Amino acid sequence: MLTTVFRARKRLAYEATLSVTVELKENEPVAVKASLQPLMDLVKQDLDETNRIILDRMHSDVELIPTLARHLIAAGGKRLRPVLTLGSAKLCGYDGNRAQKLAACVEFIHTATLLHDDVVDESDLRRGNETANVLWGNQASVLVGDFLFSRSFQLMVEDGSLDVLRILSTASAVIAEGEVLQLMNVGDINTTEESYMEVIAAKTAALFAAACEVGAVVADRPADECTALADYGQNLGIAFQLIDDALDYSAEQQALGKAVGDDFREGKVTLPLLLAFQKGNAEEQNFWTRVVEDQQQEGDLDTALQLIQKHQTLGATFDAAKAYGAKAKKALALFPESAEKEALIAAVDFAIERAY
Amino acid sequence: MLTTVFRARKRLAYEATLSVTVELKENEPVAVKASLQPLMDLVKQDLDETNRIILDRMHSDVELIPTLARHLIAAGGKRLRPVLTLGSAKLCGYDGNRAQKLAACVEFIHTATLLHDDVVDESDLRRGNETANVLWGNQASVLVGDFLFSRSFQLMVEDGSLDVLRILSTASAVIAEGEVLQLMNVGDINTTEESYMEVIAAKTAALFAAACEVGAVVADRPADECTALADYGQNLGIAFQLIDDALDYSAEQQALGKAVGDDFREGKVTLPLLLAFQKGNAEEQNFWTRVVEDQQQEGDLDTALQLIQKHQTLGATFDAAKAYGAKAKKALALFPESAEKEALIAAVDFAIERAY
Repeated sequence: MLTTVFRARKRLAYEATLSVTVELKENEPVAVKASLQPLMDLVKQDLDETNRIILDRMHSDVELIPTLARHLIAAGGKRLRPVLTLGSAKLCGYDGNRAQKLAACVEFIHTATLLHDDVVDESDLRRGNETANVLWGNQASVLVGDFLFSRSFQLMVEDGSLDVLRILSTASAVIAEGEVLQLMNVGDINTTEESYMEVIAAKTAALFAAACEVGAVVADRPADECTALADYGQNLGIAFQLIDDALDYSAEQQALGKAVGDDFREGKVTLPLLLAFQKGNAEEQNFWTRVVEDQQQEGDLDTALQLIQKHQTLGATFDAAKAYGAKAKKALALFPESAEKEALIAAVDFAIERAY
Repeated sequence: MLTTVFRARKRLAYEATLSVTVELKENEPVAVKASLQPLMDLVKQDLDETNRIILDRMHSDVELIPTLARHLIAAGGKRLRPVLTLGSAKLCGYDGNRAQKLAACVEFIHTATLLHDDVVDESDLRRGNETANVLWGNQASVLVGDFLFSRSFQLMVEDGSLDVLRILSTASAVIAEGEVLQLMNVGDINTTEESYMEVIAAKTAALFAAACEVGAVVADRPADECTALADYGQNLGIAFQLIDDALDYSAEQQALGKAVGDDFREGKVTLPLLLAFQKGNAEEQNFWTRVVEDQQQEGDLDTALQLIQKHQTLGATFDAAKAYGAKAKKALALFPESAEKEALIAAVDFAIERAY
């Protein structure tokens, strides 16, 4: 514990020099049609302001807070959730500046969950970087996450919309419920598909849905449009997580910046594993039961990958993602054609096709 | 990690049978004059409703959430913070029911910080019980804390006061900053008195201040009364934490339900230790530097207690607590005499005299 603190102190000077970049990494494979680029282009100016607000408002006189927050934020990522808030607001014809600050709120909540996930998942890689946890320890991850979460609500109060506060406080509670349910499912080979879907709908899709709905709320649009954008975000988020869970068993580690097999090693029962267990013979089911509920040995991940290949459960997972992606697009039906609508649709294809 | 989850599952059945009690423990030493009882008596009906709201709103279909939350809430405690919200509202002549729900918000935030402290402090005892962490592991403590924190903001949104949301979101951010600063001070024998005071003002007093200010806000009182109650709470909170830190080196473990020497073992530089280091000779300073920054050996706690006794730094800590207690009472000067005012003053004396 002391060593953690000393390690933290030692790194302050170095970390303080980290520069913050939020552009798409150039080496990132981006298909022409299935791309986040149209959406990024449409919201670029707003996103620049959102990033300015993020850097400005994550400041604290307690040095470790901005340092640790910067570590995650500098790690890049596509700012997918705030971009969805900004894009949804634009789709609704909003051109004020409230969405910029609320997009920062969404990113703060997301960053707080990443910091708390570092404690939760004991993962060693996130976006190809050491996690904050590895660098600073559980305690700093928890507390800085708490700070960003609180700061997010302070920003919402400044904005002054009780509807936005309701949407994002509810999403935050649902996210926590999803993470706890996931925790209870860890090491349980009998996790049902329903329970798995409940987890990803809560831990991931709820914030996507809220991020999009907030865009319609700031534009003061009628309930059906707010609901439509929430549905779009919810289904996009489910598709996004399904692909994430598939990629953890695929060779796409580079694209994800995440080590293959993380979920497997943590005993997380995601869809590719869950389906392989269901389709497996007695011997295969014994294997899955041992590696999930008991203990793993050298070579188990290779065996797992072979069984997932044998039963083509990655394909089944991709198909499920496509189905939710189609629902996401369908949810936008009531909006007239526009560059924003096309960009939001291309973002769905991007979320799915990043798998290939 | 898997074992943690299995242990958690195993305990669900047992925990579910825990009954919830919030009365003062009968064996708790309560002086006649310096007592929390007058305040508890004044708010009893409101507190019963607050407790009903707490039990009702900590519910989740994810079984582990109410189970783990109940573990802390069943551990009792005096509901000091919600009682301060209810008492402050009464002092301001408020007799509606909004304060009952907002007092539950305050307790949810406090409970969330206790859960996250379990991760932070690696403490083995809280209120004489095993911590949630020991029973469930870091991950559950973090996530259930996140749920209660989010739920608190949902309740505030239901109440609909942006002032209350501003006060409690700001307090939450300040608490996190204080906890991070404390983390950075751990293992640093050169922690200054100023830095120590900054930590306790933030990690403890900020929520006391917010709890009291909210009472004036729901009563729709003018700014000077809101500020006065915030000052009362801030100074009471500082006095309360000073006494807590003194008790960690006193024989009063029973009254605190906490093992003496927790702070010492964690390398926390609290006022009794900080003053003993400052007053110590070269040999004593070498001792403090070793036990705080390097490592501890059998018998170090006894030596620490002797040095703290030698330099009477517990007395100095109690005196500091009394000074802040006097400030807390003074802050109530602009309120006319009333049973509520007397009860709030008696609560200050209770916070301090529980040390004797």
